[in-house]
Amino acid sequence: MQSQVTRALSQASGFLSQNSLRCFSSTTFHKKDLVIEPTKTPKTLPQFDASLKFGHCPSDHLFEVDWNSKDGWGTPKISAYRNFEIDPLNSTLHYAIQCFEGLKAFHGVDGKVRLFRPERNMKRFKSSCSRIALPEFEESELLECLKEYVRVDRRWVPTVPDFSLYLRPTAISMTDALGVRQPESSKIYILGTPVGPYFPSGFKPIRLYAEKQFIRAFPGGYGQYKLGANYGPTIMVSREAEKKGFHQILWLTDNKITEIGASNIFFYLKNDDGELELVTAPIDGLSLPGVVRDSILTLAREMGEFKVSERYLNIEDFIRLSKEKRILEAFGAGTAMTIAPVELIHYDEVDYKIPVDPKHNAGELTRRLLQKVKDIQYGVNPHPWGVVIA
Amino acid sequence: MQSQVTRALSQASGFLSQNSLRCFSSTTFHKKDLVIEPTKTPKTLPQFDASLKFGHCPSDHLFEVDWNSKDGWGTPKISAYRNFEIDPLNSTLHYAIQCFEGLKAFHGVDGKVRLFRPERNMKRFKSSCSRIALPEFEESELLECLKEYVRVDRRWVPTVPDFSLYLRPTAISMTDALGVRQPESSKIYILGTPVGPYFPSGFKPIRLYAEKQFIRAFPGGYGQYKLGANYGPTIMVSREAEKKGFHQILWLTDNKITEIGASNIFFYLKNDDGELELVTAPIDGLSLPGVVRDSILTLAREMGEFKVSERYLNIEDFIRLSKEKRILEAFGAGTAMTIAPVELIHYDEVDYKIPVDPKHNAGELTRRLLQKVKDIQYGVNPHPWGVVIA
Repeated sequence: MQSQVTRALSQASGFLSQNSLRCFSSTTFHKKDLVIEPTKTPKTLPQFDASLKFGHCPSDHLFEVDWNSKDGWGTPKISAYRNFEIDPLNSTLHYAIQCFEGLKAFHGVDGKVRLFRPERNMKRFKSSCSRIALPEFEESELLECLKEYVRVDRRWVPTVPDFSLYLRPTAISMTDALGVRQPESSKIYILGTPVGPYFPSGFKPIRLYAEKQFIRAFPGGYGQYKLGANYGPTIMVSREAEKKGFHQILWLTDNKITEIGASNIFFYLKNDDGELELVTAPIDGLSLPGVVRDSILTLAREMGEFKVSERYLNIEDFIRLSKEKRILEAFGAGTAMTIAPVELIHYDEVDYKIPVDPKHNAGELTRRLLQKVKDIQYGVNPHPWGVVIA
Repeated sequence: MQSQVTRALSQASGFLSQNSLRCFSSTTFHKKDLVIEPTKTPKTLPQFDASLKFGHCPSDHLFEVDWNSKDGWGTPKISAYRNFEIDPLNSTLHYAIQCFEGLKAFHGVDGKVRLFRPERNMKRFKSSCSRIALPEFEESELLECLKEYVRVDRRWVPTVPDFSLYLRPTAISMTDALGVRQPESSKIYILGTPVGPYFPSGFKPIRLYAEKQFIRAFPGGYGQYKLGANYGPTIMVSREAEKKGFHQILWLTDNKITEIGASNIFFYLKNDDGELELVTAPIDGLSLPGVVRDSILTLAREMGEFKVSERYLNIEDFIRLSKEKRILEAFGAGTAMTIAPVELIHYDEVDYKIPVDPKHNAGELTRRLLQKVKDIQYGVNPHPWGVVIA
């Protein structure tokens, strides 16, 4: 009922907006102009079980809003999922003028649908767009459109525990011309695709290959933005590590531990002052400012049981602490994995094992922090970070 | 006549190949299988004059060949230029799984059409594909397909002096799934678009902004490959320099001068031993191994008049030499510009002027080298580098 009203209002304002395009669209699009055209051919939902492959099965709808340098932002629209017509000249295909976000919609224990700190994704998305020369927008307007998108595709938010609807806001150039320059037209779109737990049958700690030859990010670069450019070039490197039996790359820059795969990494250790300390890399251009990362820092500080630091651990520091059995736990953190225990880091032909409680396949702090995050995501712990949207 | 025969043969082998896909396609596609479907609606040629904008006007045809991990390479095809249907999940749009090449077809003074050292572009393209986890192929097969493509669109090779047909081989993932991993399907395509001289009304020396904050390439990265990832992130940086009145960025890594914009850079100077020396950055991962760059090195060595070196010039070295009036000339080199004189480098709030002969808006060596390259490209000087294809 509510969505019908919204839709009617949206269509009315969408109509208006088409007649006053220049006046409303120069700096942002608006949720009030959102046009919703529900699909006439809803798909059959996939099985929400271990057979579900991540990122292969888009939901019924697509959110889109187009921009061009002459008219600014057009009318935002939710309509049936469809392929794009893209010119071979399109500058996204040639120059990686693109960026994206990743977040999830959770079906809570109370039957409500929640996003987890989505304003952080919107903020990061806007900063990524700006870095890759795509137009900016008002974050709160995109967030309201995103919420509406999830409401429209609510049946795609799995009700199965530990499942969720993965949401992928994406921005691409739609300029059909070669020449490395500012795009003259572009598109923001959002797709949704249901996703199961990162470890379908409970924790399976991951093994990391610390990479010496290839670097993910560098000072003066763009490691802190979700640009396509940060991902494609890592595939060849990861593939070689996978062939050797490792799950992900541990990325180093000047021997500083920055990230794993496409996630942040935390170490729980006994530091040189004899204190217990939870350590992750600072956000200074080499690592992504992860939403889960920031949440863990806040939750860990609230626990008040140990020191919490954003500082670099060099690989040599890690090796020394590891040899002295002072690395107590390590885990990755990101939207895809939430929190994943690390059991081994391979560096320079040597395996360094990290303790995991064999009963749970994860350390105690790792499990406690994951539980805290999940309790907010699935509404077990009502919390301002769990934003109810439906 | 010849093209009709080629076409008939191609269609026959194309038919055969469709019936024996697995047997021929595992490691490369083949020119002998090329299918040509000429457009039924040839376009009107644009004006080959100063009104021609680079990269906006594709020719009549598109070369395409598809790959997937199950069947390998499909049948190569030249057909009417068309848009692609691309799924919003496509991993080229999200993770910059893409790379490209740029080369030109020249209408020579003898009426023949030539490519300039195209085997170098094919080799670099293959290495870029490999770096970005796209499948490899036999370079000579792609080159033969490229030649045929130019023959099919021969009328698009401008007969106007200093014009050419720019050719853009491109490789993209065609995998419709999220997840940062090896693509399961991909496409190579080639488009052509006519291009005029870099300086429509004679030389106009360029002014460079030496960038201190942002870095283009870094050790352990991918600066030596033509990945989309090397281009998009530079746009915002170039735009800011353009606003200040500069034409291009002079890229530094650890204060080493590497490239300008998307081209190589040369300095002609008097070195600390009192010798005349032509200097450009070595190919060690930070700079693109340019075809024009390599050609200039060879031609300059053949001249035997001065020392020719692939070594780094630090920005401090440049400043010192500039102050001592020992920078005699500087020029950029690349497929787009061929050779472009540099008249100024701005670094840390100071302008450093570089001599240009006011009569020609370029130094003498700059002009001599450009003439040598152009004479080969346009068939004035018959040379093995000028590959006659039609």
